[in-house]
Amino acid sequence: MWQPITNIDHLGTNSIMNKVWQSVDKRKKQEHTGLMSVTTGLDSAALLPADERTREIAVDLYREVAEAPIISPHGHVDPALLRDDRPFSDPAELLIRHDHYVTRLLFAGGAGFAELGLDDRAPRAPREVWRQLASQWHRFAGTASGYWLQHELADLFDIREDLSDENADATYDRIAAVLARDDFRPRALFDRFRIEVLATTDDPLDDLSVHRELRSAGLGGRVLPTFRPDAYLDPASPSFDERVGALLDATSKPGTFTGYLAALEERRAHFIENGAVSADHGVFEPFTAELSAADAERLFAAARAGELDGEERRLFRGHMLFQMARMSVADGLVMTVHPGVYRNHHTATLERFGPDTGHDIPVRTEYTHNLRPLLNAFGTEPGFHLVLFAVDETVYSREVAPLAGFYPSVYIGAPWWFLDAPDAILRFRSAVTETAGFYRGSGFVDDTRAFLSIPARHDTARRLDAAFLARLVQEGRVTLPAARRIARDLVDAIPREVFKL
Amino acid sequence: MWQPITNIDHLGTNSIMNKVWQSVDKRKKQEHTGLMSVTTGLDSAALLPADERTREIAVDLYREVAEAPIISPHGHVDPALLRDDRPFSDPAELLIRHDHYVTRLLFAGGAGFAELGLDDRAPRAPREVWRQLASQWHRFAGTASGYWLQHELADLFDIREDLSDENADATYDRIAAVLARDDFRPRALFDRFRIEVLATTDDPLDDLSVHRELRSAGLGGRVLPTFRPDAYLDPASPSFDERVGALLDATSKPGTFTGYLAALEERRAHFIENGAVSADHGVFEPFTAELSAADAERLFAAARAGELDGEERRLFRGHMLFQMARMSVADGLVMTVHPGVYRNHHTATLERFGPDTGHDIPVRTEYTHNLRPLLNAFGTEPGFHLVLFAVDETVYSREVAPLAGFYPSVYIGAPWWFLDAPDAILRFRSAVTETAGFYRGSGFVDDTRAFLSIPARHDTARRLDAAFLARLVQEGRVTLPAARRIARDLVDAIPREVFKL
Amino acid sequence: MWQPITNIDHLGTNSIMNKVWQSVDKRKKQEHTGLMSVTTGLDSAALLPADERTREIAVDLYREVAEAPIISPHGHVDPALLRDDRPFSDPAELLIRHDHYVTRLLFAGGAGFAELGLDDRAPRAPREVWRQLASQWHRFAGTASGYWLQHELADLFDIREDLSDENADATYDRIAAVLARDDFRPRALFDRFRIEVLATTDDPLDDLSVHRELRSAGLGGRVLPTFRPDAYLDPASPSFDERVGALLDATSKPGTFTGYLAALEERRAHFIENGAVSADHGVFEPFTAELSAADAERLFAAARAGELDGEERRLFRGHMLFQMARMSVADGLVMTVHPGVYRNHHTATLERFGPDTGHDIPVRTEYTHNLRPLLNAFGTEPGFHLVLFAVDETVYSREVAPLAGFYPSVYIGAPWWFLDAPDAILRFRSAVTETAGFYRGSGFVDDTRAFLSIPARHDTARRLDAAFLARLVQEGRVTLPAARRIARDLVDAIPREVFKL
Repeated sequence: MWQPITNIDHLGTNSIMNKVWQSVDKRKKQEHTGLMSVTTGLDSAALLPADERTREIAVDLYREVAEAPIISPHGHVDPALLRDDRPFSDPAELLIRHDHYVTRLLFAGGAGFAELGLDDRAPRAPREVWRQLASQWHRFAGTASGYWLQHELADLFDIREDLSDENADATYDRIAAVLARDDFRPRALFDRFRIEVLATTDDPLDDLSVHRELRSAGLGGRVLPTFRPDAYLDPASPSFDERVGALLDATSKPGTFTGYLAALEERRAHFIENGAVSADHGVFEPFTAELSAADAERLFAAARAGELDGEERRLFRGHMLFQMARMSVADGLVMTVHPGVYRNHHTATLERFGPDTGHDIPVRTEYTHNLRPLLNAFGTEPGFHLVLFAVDETVYSREVAPLAGFYPSVYIGAPWWFLDAPDAILRFRSAVTETAGFYRGSGFVDDTRAFLSIPARHDTARRLDAAFLARLVQEGRVTLPAARRIARDLVDAIPREVFKL
Repeated sequence: MWQPITNIDHLGTNSIMNKVWQSVDKRKKQEHTGLMSVTTGLDSAALLPADERTREIAVDLYREVAEAPIISPHGHVDPALLRDDRPFSDPAELLIRHDHYVTRLLFAGGAGFAELGLDDRAPRAPREVWRQLASQWHRFAGTASGYWLQHELADLFDIREDLSDENADATYDRIAAVLARDDFRPRALFDRFRIEVLATTDDPLDDLSVHRELRSAGLGGRVLPTFRPDAYLDPASPSFDERVGALLDATSKPGTFTGYLAALEERRAHFIENGAVSADHGVFEPFTAELSAADAERLFAAARAGELDGEERRLFRGHMLFQMARMSVADGLVMTVHPGVYRNHHTATLERFGPDTGHDIPVRTEYTHNLRPLLNAFGTEPGFHLVLFAVDETVYSREVAPLAGFYPSVYIGAPWWFLDAPDAILRFRSAVTETAGFYRGSGFVDDTRAFLSIPARHDTARRLDAAFLARLVQEGRVTLPAARRIARDLVDAIPREVFKL
Repeated sequence: MWQPITNIDHLGTNSIMNKVWQSVDKRKKQEHTGLMSVTTGLDSAALLPADERTREIAVDLYREVAEAPIISPHGHVDPALLRDDRPFSDPAELLIRHDHYVTRLLFAGGAGFAELGLDDRAPRAPREVWRQLASQWHRFAGTASGYWLQHELADLFDIREDLSDENADATYDRIAAVLARDDFRPRALFDRFRIEVLATTDDPLDDLSVHRELRSAGLGGRVLPTFRPDAYLDPASPSFDERVGALLDATSKPGTFTGYLAALEERRAHFIENGAVSADHGVFEPFTAELSAADAERLFAAARAGELDGEERRLFRGHMLFQMARMSVADGLVMTVHPGVYRNHHTATLERFGPDTGHDIPVRTEYTHNLRPLLNAFGTEPGFHLVLFAVDETVYSREVAPLAGFYPSVYIGAPWWFLDAPDAILRFRSAVTETAGFYRGSGFVDDTRAFLSIPARHDTARRLDAAFLARLVQEGRVTLPAARRIARDLVDAIPREVFKL
């Protein structure tokens, strides 16, 4: 059973990583004496290869990057969290309620939204919600969420045992006690996490005042906005006409397609002035098309009037993705595309609890045909950067890596969403590297709304890249000096280049 | 060359597993002295990880479950085999003729159906058929069928060498001698295999008298029927009208769509009375749709008259899969879906030798869109269990695991058919676990019509689950106590819960 | 840094493989003393498993085949290279300019076609082109191209360090010096590479005089032509009418569909007379259809007149692939199909620099439905051999292996193009073997136009097959004697049988 630690104050004085190397040496000794036992704790060999010689190389490579600053060029942390810098309210709020990776699995296991503290009409005490997680902890074994939680519990709260009914209250109390400390407020953690760049995701009409305030907040790193115009580009969005109207009003542009494009360009410029480096596009499919000016004007008017049929809506969306590329060529914003997710699969849950509640399900996605119009027009434009993410891993070797292996603009997005997990990351590396190498990728992207999981996610990626590279070294496919350079570039030079940081 | 064993009588006194641990120790000694050589025999390290430390963990986990009873909640063993309890006739009948996994590969290698004993117009002596297998044994190296045969030959007949022209007759004689023994008849094996539950697959009009007889046969475990209505639901089935007529007659229901539904419900009730826990659906695609009562009535009449076009037949099938879910919600039968197989690809072989002759070929399959109507209607219904199998492994990480990671009703079917093999099982675990964990799966399902292969298949699954879990433990992703619990639950609590046993 | 070797003349006296076993022993010693370090050199453990015991088995299996002659039954080497037997002009010509695997990755990394020496209007000195490769060497780390180049540099030029700006000129000079030697001309290398069979790919109207000349050139192996009729079968080909006209003229056949078929048959006969064993089909999709004689005649006339719509062109292509199978049944040419590539994705590059310039991108491909008409007609015809290649690796386990596991005519093509790389080869083996075994595959096919890469590619395949087999042995799934036989058969009996050599 989990042993309570009497003096929790010493935790704050530890950096997140500083116990890592102690445990390396400890483990090594254990191996040599044959006493090694795997426990809850994360030690340095976590996620590294089992084979001893390969693991030695992996540890070597991991040491190169374990303490490197975090560059997080795409994610969903609310910047107000850092502006307000209030203490996190409670363990359930911190680790469960806002993480739909976690709540969906508890829901699948039989817990209702009310029991998870997600039903405003039936509020639950956070301790009860925490007990749900502790009681259902076995459901997270082997999952990405489980691994991140394990990492956070160990590194941030020194909890190194499986959660259970027995230790639910004690772990809750322990976390709650830590949360009350000043050095556990968001800004203190931002610096402790060594975050150098953190990009948020923002509405095109956001005035970005929060980001401006944060610039003078004395943070050790930068918080950048990201232009995310989906709802303004998709005629199928229920609020399309209203949003376009607001966009035109805010920019004083005429209600023509040309005015609409100019309004979008003006808001992009506003984002760039406030530090944005990228524009993000969460489309259902990466379909692109170029319409004539007349057709675009006609479809735009009909879209606002709600008069498009399905194929016309698709054409309009495809033309707007094409236009977004054109704007990125012009203004330099990196274009990131996140396609392939059927959002809000379960209508009753959407209607009752809103979006982002755990029932977004991937679908088969096509890139080679869909992106051809865009790439024929802009694929070799100097300075254009197009990062292609995927939740359909079949496209890695078949479409995305070959595209990135030719078009200078195309970068392979890091494993995303359901694929942002240890085995999936290794499958990703195996699928893309032989065709496109390491230098056509985006570098790691955490894409998280769970602020506390950022170090766990980056550390996971660093360990797995070290593991993958170590295998290539051990197999005589990459030299050790080359692997060292690559390991460093993957967390530094590559994301800086791809995201123009 | 294979060495004949002079005293075969001692074989019967050995339990299947009891030599395993002896060989563990033997192997361990060999490793330490550097003398280990891999021979034909299955020893305890078979299918377990090569890395020494990981394998030690895997052996530990495998020991938890190696001798656990077999729960087989879905398969195709003929219950008459157990009722009649006759000796198996000969080695070819036992291991070749009824296993289209085996005959297809011999056919692909050049043997005609006649040479395989499958052509009634050109009968062959079973010994000649056996010689075919022995002569072509190299074709099975590395295949799932080869592995199961190897396992059966070793565990049941103590034959631990590759088959060959040289030992064809000796092995034939050895097996034939064992088959003549009383303790090798089906019921004796049923008990020796420690089968606790064996589900068969049955026609909705089956009176299930065989199952009733077996209930009082004194078997150590239960034999349960499964409701399999495909031919009664698909207007493209050549006997659709005739079967529906028989169904309505048997239940004295009127020839309306409502009568048809009531007839199906009545037969399901009959199955439930006779112990059935699930209804199985072998559809081409998991397409579902909800029709209005009027449309359903109209399509039903046209279907019986053979007047539907392709799209209407699809709609009718989709509506019937939807109806089957509705009935499962009402009567509690677990709904299992086996989609994605193009049956009887080679028309000439179908016409000459019938179905299930080795030329069923998988196709790309879609779940996210297809199942949405069904899941929106019933996906969160308490007590509804929907097990989704796949022969298209791209859906594991992309569609099936995410669906099972939200909908409480959805369980991930164990690797099926072509994917029910060592490497494919590990790919399956890797693909689904990070999204859905271990507790959203069905537990192992052997789906076999080859009675003798049941222990080999379950043992394979247990070893590979131990191997997979051991890697997670070794990589610090799951604790050893958690892995132990999971290993046990995978063969016990999980199938019991999913199949309501 | 790379150390110049003073005496390069000794290189020629070494066979390619003869240093392998020295390094095996050296490495082994290093392992035992714990001093092993992985450097640039390829030693015998390259690509073999990390686990020590598994690697020992793999080394054992690799020894069986390391020095076996090369059978290359499909590729794109220009036979004039061997007829002319001129010295290779320079390192860039040899290793960069004609290898679009290499140039595409340099282009993606920012180098223009001019800097790569590919723009005739802006010629570059080969040394400058070489510096590009050296400077961008890190982009090839982990890629298939990088691995082959590394292998060639080490084995042929004794360059065992990563290329870099620093050693660019020295390595250029070293290679240039070797190229000037008589024993480095194409025919000498052909023999040194131990090539027993090398198939080229040729236009149906080629008179094959080069192949006839080579027959009396005293080469140690045979150079065979391959019939490749794509441009004569696809009405979408811009020169279709012209080519068909030339075909009919050359064979004095009437301009009817029947005449067209007869003309193709006559040219196939010409190829067979000149040693051809196969006909190759690079189609977009493996769609097949059988048209009536009247429909075929009508579509043929319309195709020549350029009057077919998209669906009719597809039907015509499908019918011609069907006809090619019919001809293969009749004349015995092995039919190889390479589908699934969107050729010339970037129109501007095609127009400026022509085809085969690095922007052919795979697409999702379907085999089960598409090939059914062909397989129903010819799939069980004695002597018919149909080799199915794929760039969409999802079809390996789902469609191609199951097809090859039933139809005696179907063989699984070796990993092709983007999948012809270490990890992809292992994924291929894992995906197909459990369903179809080792004896339904084609044996390795290098498919290369880079003559110097032939030994590297075959050696890669041999190592990886040894690695895969060793794992099966170590896991108790295949016996060591069986694995030995399979390893040998994969490079000898299997390609001989499949390609009728």
